[in-house]
Amino acid sequence: MSNPSAAMLVIGDEILSGRTRDANMHFLAQEFTKHGIDLKEVRVVSDDKAAIIAAVNGLRGAYDVVVTSGGIGPTHDDITADCIAEAFGTGIDVQDEARARLQAHYDRQGTELNAARLRMARIPFGATLIDNPVSIAPGFSIENVHVMAGVPAVFQAMVASLLPNLTGGSPLLSQSLRIYRGEGDIAGPLAELAAQYADLSFGSYPFQKDGVYGANVVIRGADGAQVDHAMAALATLFPDT
Amino acid sequence: MSNPSAAMLVIGDEILSGRTRDANMHFLAQEFTKHGIDLKEVRVVSDDKAAIIAAVNGLRGAYDVVVTSGGIGPTHDDITADCIAEAFGTGIDVQDEARARLQAHYDRQGTELNAARLRMARIPFGATLIDNPVSIAPGFSIENVHVMAGVPAVFQAMVASLLPNLTGGSPLLSQSLRIYRGEGDIAGPLAELAAQYADLSFGSYPFQKDGVYGANVVIRGADGAQVDHAMAALATLFPDT
Repeated sequence: MSNPSAAMLVIGDEILSGRTRDANMHFLAQEFTKHGIDLKEVRVVSDDKAAIIAAVNGLRGAYDVVVTSGGIGPTHDDITADCIAEAFGTGIDVQDEARARLQAHYDRQGTELNAARLRMARIPFGATLIDNPVSIAPGFSIENVHVMAGVPAVFQAMVASLLPNLTGGSPLLSQSLRIYRGEGDIAGPLAELAAQYADLSFGSYPFQKDGVYGANVVIRGADGAQVDHAMAALATLFPDT
Repeated sequence: MSNPSAAMLVIGDEILSGRTRDANMHFLAQEFTKHGIDLKEVRVVSDDKAAIIAAVNGLRGAYDVVVTSGGIGPTHDDITADCIAEAFGTGIDVQDEARARLQAHYDRQGTELNAARLRMARIPFGATLIDNPVSIAPGFSIENVHVMAGVPAVFQAMVASLLPNLTGGSPLLSQSLRIYRGEGDIAGPLAELAAQYADLSFGSYPFQKDGVYGANVVIRGADGAQVDHAMAALATLFPDT
């Protein structure tokens, strides 16, 4: 049985303008790999309604799981929740449970739950909340789409809240060998080895540093014994590394 | 006149498995912003032929400029060039100029230009080469699609080779103000200001560090005087920051 497939949608002008370097994609990729969910595609789009809706609808039909990050704060450029509602053809309004969480949080802080903050309690109809232990304002899940914040600490906390609710598969296992030969010398023997192990994937990632060059060859698969076996065969092919 | 629009396609299992953290997207975003090209979308797909072809064809029709990174090395998992040829419905073969560059390079090194290395001279028909001063094997441009390596040092060198050939627009200017107030307090006044300056974009990026919280508000636009004016108005709204 193959693992569930997943896609991620990163929403935010700040990533595309180069102002901010996205950190959430790398984090999610690692978490999903550990959990046995295959991240197959990532898209980054700007804070543009049509772009967000088109991406959400394209991805949720193509993959088992879709995660979004960004655009669920209190400011005018935070339009993700509204776009998700529109993508699903449903309504959106302040949700009682989300409002109660925010009210309790801001009461403790002695801060007013004003109109801007209350926007963070607007949840599409039919969605369930994703806990946010960091800054309280929740994410939400609607069908197979899970909508989370862009601030890395909050995103990571929401992923931790979400993961136990997602069905995982076999974690992808990997081993790597650092080979101090040019990729052009590695390529031929590696292709032959890859042909012998059709269930495994073989990747070659070249490096070049301080005049030394070579490649990290990574063998990945769900069957640990098979990965071991292929790695032993690889080491035999390049005994001097 | 609006700036040219662009998309980027990052190709590589190693990004999606979390093994490698992509660095090229952030670099390209910054370079394009300086050059007046609006990066509107990024996609990351795995080393999968159908996924690459679908993404290339989706993006090249939708944007003025498309840049790809990854998958043009000598190993069996480097399938980008073949996928680009197929996406354009054209053929691919070893190209004389690309072969000559590689031959000269490996002759200097005393290394054999074997079958694997020669794969890097396979260029789709009709494409022009993108210089690679770092490791010689060239990228290529075909119509509005520019195909480059994934290794960051090589990608960056290729971007430098490509940029003078791309028509830029007005560089996007930005100014930011760090406001030590909750985003919920910033949101209302910021939305009113944004409504007054329809040609500018206003972003709010919250931070929370060591118990201090607030947001960086960024005002972006092509007209420097207008950005200055709006920033002065913003500073008046939040005089205590």
